[in-house]
Amino acid sequence: MDLQGKWFFELITPDLVLLYRVKNFLYSGKTDYQDVEILETGTFGKSLVLDGKTQSTSADEHIYHEALAHPALLLHPNPRSVFIGGGGEGATLREVLAHRSVERVTMVDLDGRVVELARAHLPEHSRGAFDDPRTRLVHQDARRYLAETTEVYDAIVLDLVDPLEGGAAYTLYTREFYEIAMSRLSRDGVLVTQSGPGSLLNHTECFTAIVNTLSGLFPATLPYAVYVPAFVTPWTFTIALKGPAAASSLSGPEEVDALIGERLQGRLRFYDGVTHRHMFSLPTYLREGIAAERRVVTDDAPVFMV
Amino acid sequence: MDLQGKWFFELITPDLVLLYRVKNFLYSGKTDYQDVEILETGTFGKSLVLDGKTQSTSADEHIYHEALAHPALLLHPNPRSVFIGGGGEGATLREVLAHRSVERVTMVDLDGRVVELARAHLPEHSRGAFDDPRTRLVHQDARRYLAETTEVYDAIVLDLVDPLEGGAAYTLYTREFYEIAMSRLSRDGVLVTQSGPGSLLNHTECFTAIVNTLSGLFPATLPYAVYVPAFVTPWTFTIALKGPAAASSLSGPEEVDALIGERLQGRLRFYDGVTHRHMFSLPTYLREGIAAERRVVTDDAPVFMV
Amino acid sequence: MDLQGKWFFELITPDLVLLYRVKNFLYSGKTDYQDVEILETGTFGKSLVLDGKTQSTSADEHIYHEALAHPALLLHPNPRSVFIGGGGEGATLREVLAHRSVERVTMVDLDGRVVELARAHLPEHSRGAFDDPRTRLVHQDARRYLAETTEVYDAIVLDLVDPLEGGAAYTLYTREFYEIAMSRLSRDGVLVTQSGPGSLLNHTECFTAIVNTLSGLFPATLPYAVYVPAFVTPWTFTIALKGPAAASSLSGPEEVDALIGERLQGRLRFYDGVTHRHMFSLPTYLREGIAAERRVVTDDAPVFMV
Amino acid sequence: MDLQGKWFFELITPDLVLLYRVKNFLYSGKTDYQDVEILETGTFGKSLVLDGKTQSTSADEHIYHEALAHPALLLHPNPRSVFIGGGGEGATLREVLAHRSVERVTMVDLDGRVVELARAHLPEHSRGAFDDPRTRLVHQDARRYLAETTEVYDAIVLDLVDPLEGGAAYTLYTREFYEIAMSRLSRDGVLVTQSGPGSLLNHTECFTAIVNTLSGLFPATLPYAVYVPAFVTPWTFTIALKGPAAASSLSGPEEVDALIGERLQGRLRFYDGVTHRHMFSLPTYLREGIAAERRVVTDDAPVFMV
Repeated sequence: MDLQGKWFFELITPDLVLLYRVKNFLYSGKTDYQDVEILETGTFGKSLVLDGKTQSTSADEHIYHEALAHPALLLHPNPRSVFIGGGGEGATLREVLAHRSVERVTMVDLDGRVVELARAHLPEHSRGAFDDPRTRLVHQDARRYLAETTEVYDAIVLDLVDPLEGGAAYTLYTREFYEIAMSRLSRDGVLVTQSGPGSLLNHTECFTAIVNTLSGLFPATLPYAVYVPAFVTPWTFTIALKGPAAASSLSGPEEVDALIGERLQGRLRFYDGVTHRHMFSLPTYLREGIAAERRVVTDDAPVFMV
Repeated sequence: MDLQGKWFFELITPDLVLLYRVKNFLYSGKTDYQDVEILETGTFGKSLVLDGKTQSTSADEHIYHEALAHPALLLHPNPRSVFIGGGGEGATLREVLAHRSVERVTMVDLDGRVVELARAHLPEHSRGAFDDPRTRLVHQDARRYLAETTEVYDAIVLDLVDPLEGGAAYTLYTREFYEIAMSRLSRDGVLVTQSGPGSLLNHTECFTAIVNTLSGLFPATLPYAVYVPAFVTPWTFTIALKGPAAASSLSGPEEVDALIGERLQGRLRFYDGVTHRHMFSLPTYLREGIAAERRVVTDDAPVFMV
Repeated sequence: MDLQGKWFFELITPDLVLLYRVKNFLYSGKTDYQDVEILETGTFGKSLVLDGKTQSTSADEHIYHEALAHPALLLHPNPRSVFIGGGGEGATLREVLAHRSVERVTMVDLDGRVVELARAHLPEHSRGAFDDPRTRLVHQDARRYLAETTEVYDAIVLDLVDPLEGGAAYTLYTREFYEIAMSRLSRDGVLVTQSGPGSLLNHTECFTAIVNTLSGLFPATLPYAVYVPAFVTPWTFTIALKGPAAASSLSGPEEVDALIGERLQGRLRFYDGVTHRHMFSLPTYLREGIAAERRVVTDDAPVFMV
Repeated sequence: MDLQGKWFFELITPDLVLLYRVKNFLYSGKTDYQDVEILETGTFGKSLVLDGKTQSTSADEHIYHEALAHPALLLHPNPRSVFIGGGGEGATLREVLAHRSVERVTMVDLDGRVVELARAHLPEHSRGAFDDPRTRLVHQDARRYLAETTEVYDAIVLDLVDPLEGGAAYTLYTREFYEIAMSRLSRDGVLVTQSGPGSLLNHTECFTAIVNTLSGLFPATLPYAVYVPAFVTPWTFTIALKGPAAASSLSGPEEVDALIGERLQGRLRFYDGVTHRHMFSLPTYLREGIAAERRVVTDDAPVFMV
């Protein structure tokens, strides 16, 4: 009688579906921008699902959020002002605030209702980060905010939902947007964005196109990937550096470990020097895919995930 | 009408199921030892499934088989005689035979019917390897064969089905078996075995126990992992070296690339120097899991996968 | 993207599963006796599921409950005192109370928590029936209650969960229980019980055995069946008459319609004279299955549904 | 491990899906007109599936085919010449040929490949009927055939696939088609068509519209319904009589049984007098649905099933 009961179906591709057995559906609803499910599964604990796609789960969110936030911030000599685009659950915010140098974080997430729901149902994702005096939370379109602000940031961390057709986020993955973002970075500024799945079978959906788009704008680009269990695929991130020098600054595992010790409060669960080398040593197909990519993502020619 | 039609359900855990949409069921049957399905999916092409578990698919079998065979053989100074345990589809055989130094390969797979079916339905997996004059194919229990043979091997490559409760393979993952295997290795001999899944959520199922068991016997053990799309999880392998010196011999990506060029015929699709570094730089949780592991797998206390 | 989202799996047989797309899970929990889900689907509206089996849904509960209650009560010349065994949602109670002659209904359902949940989440199933002054609600084992009571009933209506292995209800389908029940019926008393599924493929699971058991005790037995959409199969009921005369009293559709008009308050949605003829004219396989049945269900040799 | 393995998903509605566990996929392919699957399940034995919809299965095809063929033929005083529209598997043909009076059957099924496949894989459905000297098999559009033929038939039996949007069959459910068919019937001629599902939740999809369309043309119309396990819903049929007298001729179960004995060779498995009464005594909602229906199906305003 294994099969009986409550399940959540997530489409990986139209031909591949993941079925999670659900213990509890904690919240089901719609915000002004998206469908929201907060559910609890035996495998992943609590899970936030937006528009049918798992965003983060209790069991493994630290992999995603540490991998997103730390390499970029460590590549900056002294990040004091940070911008987060998206980041609803507050876990990216939590990781950014762990950097002792950080004095001010502006988090701009369009969907205030998702932030509210995450605070109510997933407090362990933010662990007080929203109450940190360094945090400023704004509910607005991140592109518009960056276009209009006069502030300048040492780091821009883009923790956005995937560029789905019909979704709102695809304009945050284009050359035009990256030009705006670049203009808001300080001299040694660093930008990092999640850049979609990175397995042999799906890395050209958007990863290689995003890397190629950023490479055309920034002096240096550093793509990397890590397996996130709840996504059942490696996930990619791409760092873009405004100042070229920093690119070589994290040369060995020992140096990464030393920097983590120096600059971060508390202990990390996932990211360390050897893990850094693991993530930045891309398997062949990712390197070949990047080398072969010619697409530049623009407002008129966006990329969409399946 | 997306959902309509033929699907294959594969249990990842009792709470997590993968649904593949199937284009064609090419073969369904039972051998003396296991259930066999050969099916074709949109995502993975042709797929061999034994006892309900995907073994290899056209789309990504090169990742698994290159990762299994090449690091171990390159760690041996001059592998001439190789033993393959299992390896039904012939793809491991194909990769082993690509090494110019290899003069003789003994492949011992219990289930002759699976080999036959793979040759008929998946000829692109073996690509003529069964007809290579260096190949000797035996259908017998690999443990018994090794216990009784007087041959000595430079490399033992274990491409076995998972240790499932009630299955036949679990006795090929125990200390007693590894003692037999070690005794059949030549002085600089190297053994490699697949060692189960390696994500945050499943790496202690059998991976860490196998590593710990081999570490207790061999002078040096080298665990590594790589994501295999059809398994939807990173997969692990463990190398055990009879002679300690070799362990340090593949220090940098350039050296691996040079060795590949020297010792292998034809071009690899997946494995190269940077990929080697990616695979052997284990993420935190795998290193921590190995460090914390105390189990030794024995005939009386075997490990089973879920 | 049809497939994405929340689904409920209900096992019809180990080889046949029904997937309902769920709009909302309204309640999920365990009582002292069973798992309870109250969910809302596009097809059936709100649905009560006990131990993984759909019990009744907004869309079609009137079919089941009218079919269960009315034929038996109309076969009695003047039912004043009625016993309901089970009947958690209160819909059987509602239908029984629609008979003008009924002066007193004792409903004995073991699981008070299910009654509470149904009143809270499915008030349209009981429509005030629990507040009717003629209703007496007891939470106790129905068999024990009947064994110990000194009351006598004109009708006993058994609206029980299926006899599942390991469940509590199977002792309410045995010869020993029916002997107790018969002893509590007045002279012209009538008993009716739900008696399980009635399709060609499942009618011998328990239906024919229940009919045979009742036939061995009561002067007359009247099995009938009706399709209930949420069960995706015809469902059976069996009436047993303590006084033989009544058996012939509902001979034609017109007579049934006349009696309904006379004896019932309000309008029925499903049951009428032609429907009565439909339900009591059993298709061949049910008549043949009954004729061939030799099993008598006893406490020592119970029947279980799959 | 219940869930593991091969399944077939059939959409009942977009919110309700049936999963069959499949033992063997015997045939998968496309003809010029439709997708064909022939598969074997534990519950239903061998099953023919066209365009994703189960057409008939070994376990229960006799219910559908006896219910389709016999009432109409018995309502004709002496059916000698019969036209079958569709009927690919040959089971309707088999039942029609069981009538001793039948001298000539013209079966017109568009898709010769389906007939071939059914003869090869499902020979027990036709049981030699295609080799009966009275049979004439034509592969052509049934509407065009009827429009062009000069033959006249005592009975027209329409065993067609459902009227699906984009499918070919929907023009065989329109007033224009029924006018053609009526013109090809002899004086006491009878037409019967399958008319779609007949549960509370789906009977207005096409059943009531087809009945209303035939009622507008023929002197008498007799709708009926029977549960077919593999369809998990009652299925409807509609008889239309060119001569009004016959309509009253099957008044009681005994008369039906007598006629069956007189006019049919061999023993029926499902249809008999009481079953006839069961099928023609429609439950309330079908009678009410017919009474309320105003749609007339025409070539310009067809009905489609979901």
